[in-house]
Amino acid sequence: MDRESFWTADPAELLRVGPGFRLADVDTNAHPGFDGDKVAGQAALAEGAAVLNRLQEQLFANNVVNGDERRVLLVLQAMDSAGKGGIVNHVMGAVDPQGVHLAAFKKPTAEELQHDFLWRIHKQVPAAGQIGVFDRSHYEDVLIGRVRELALPEEIERRYGAINDFEEELARTGTSIVKVMLHLSKDEQRERLADRLARPDKHWKFNPGDIDERARWDDYQEAYQLVFERTATADAPWFVVPADRKWYARLAVQHLVIDALERMDLDWPKADYDVAEQQRRLAAS
Amino acid sequence: MDRESFWTADPAELLRVGPGFRLADVDTNAHPGFDGDKVAGQAALAEGAAVLNRLQEQLFANNVVNGDERRVLLVLQAMDSAGKGGIVNHVMGAVDPQGVHLAAFKKPTAEELQHDFLWRIHKQVPAAGQIGVFDRSHYEDVLIGRVRELALPEEIERRYGAINDFEEELARTGTSIVKVMLHLSKDEQRERLADRLARPDKHWKFNPGDIDERARWDDYQEAYQLVFERTATADAPWFVVPADRKWYARLAVQHLVIDALERMDLDWPKADYDVAEQQRRLAAS
Repeated sequence: MDRESFWTADPAELLRVGPGFRLADVDTNAHPGFDGDKVAGQAALAEGAAVLNRLQEQLFANNVVNGDERRVLLVLQAMDSAGKGGIVNHVMGAVDPQGVHLAAFKKPTAEELQHDFLWRIHKQVPAAGQIGVFDRSHYEDVLIGRVRELALPEEIERRYGAINDFEEELARTGTSIVKVMLHLSKDEQRERLADRLARPDKHWKFNPGDIDERARWDDYQEAYQLVFERTATADAPWFVVPADRKWYARLAVQHLVIDALERMDLDWPKADYDVAEQQRRLAAS
Repeated sequence: MDRESFWTADPAELLRVGPGFRLADVDTNAHPGFDGDKVAGQAALAEGAAVLNRLQEQLFANNVVNGDERRVLLVLQAMDSAGKGGIVNHVMGAVDPQGVHLAAFKKPTAEELQHDFLWRIHKQVPAAGQIGVFDRSHYEDVLIGRVRELALPEEIERRYGAINDFEEELARTGTSIVKVMLHLSKDEQRERLADRLARPDKHWKFNPGDIDERARWDDYQEAYQLVFERTATADAPWFVVPADRKWYARLAVQHLVIDALERMDLDWPKADYDVAEQQRRLAAS
């Protein structure tokens, strides 16, 4: 099966959170597994898009023809301005929208707060044959939930276990889970927020609350470190993607999705009808 | 406001279904309003994508900042293989997925059949700030519904009125509705189905039932003609797009969505915070 030609080492190995992982040790400006510059990275993204497109179409086709129940769930978490939106637009946006289910989780509504924290999440998991993308996720409930003390400490503790049980259930029913934290530096965030403030066509992307969250940077880094320690499992691994260079983060996340699909060993499904017979019918019609 | 440079006449005028419209008179191979060939058409699509992207982002941004409730609903109807999927992938797929809500309507489920025909449709209308795309729609209930006699004639009659009431309600609450029939010739359909049968990577897109529907071609054309006569309104116009040339159909539908957005007179929303104050806060953080 054709795959991308440009990696010097597999980012799915380089970026996976393993035992002893420390977020503080990650270089946010690095580009592991890729030797080129931004221009080369952008060309590589187009090459990867063709690979991703074929694999996604095969996943979808196998569901249509054979009822194949497999699916992919990409979970995106990050500090503000780290580039989640760009991943959604430029990586997943290159895939046929028919095969993608996107869910963006914002501040919970009054109705959502009347339920357990996984209620709104479970409703948005991808259907068989689909690639689901979570722009923020149930991890907010142990990130901002912890940092802002939105729940009691024992409830936060309970949630790590609930998340692991939930993800294990998804994995057992055919979901390949890819969890990504886009990791940028505090300085790079300042530059990106400054850019939003400098450009009238970007003002709508800025919110004064972004600076309030920024003030708790260290608390968030600590909450992420705990997330990795408690929820990085074999079935639902975490990947920390250096994100100071947008082009690299996009290329790496594209590869992580490609890698999940390649492990499914997909091919075009066989026709469930007699091709020659249908060709005769068509010619006569 | 910048718009596409390449139209010789506005397809929104040329393709709109007006009084006395007859589907049988439409040349499925024509390319009204565009003088170039396929290569020029594909280049034009990229130019149009940039225009569409900006307008979509402005629609989305005005909702975020000002709570602007406007939205767009693109309804796609066509005979099999006319290119609905290509429109979804290559026209709407070029837009940021965050701002697009796609709903594909298939054969109704047992639960859906327990409700009126608009029940499943209403749940999928776009939210404020979104562009909704219906791949098939409530019109199936007066197309296959009529041709296959899935409901009594008086119920089919009732539905035209119910559709007009429903769409009027959507229009009054801020929805710009664009209804498109992709119109291909019966010969072109044979070629496209033959292509699907000739290529193993396309077998999954073919269904023997496609030939059964093809056998009722004239009945469907008549059902479409009735749809236009009964449901082409000022608030929810129909456009018949010649679709034997895929590149033209894509370019024309792209323009119809651009046209709907341009009529909204969108601009970047003003910041609802003091920019200079936030710049000071950011610099100090």
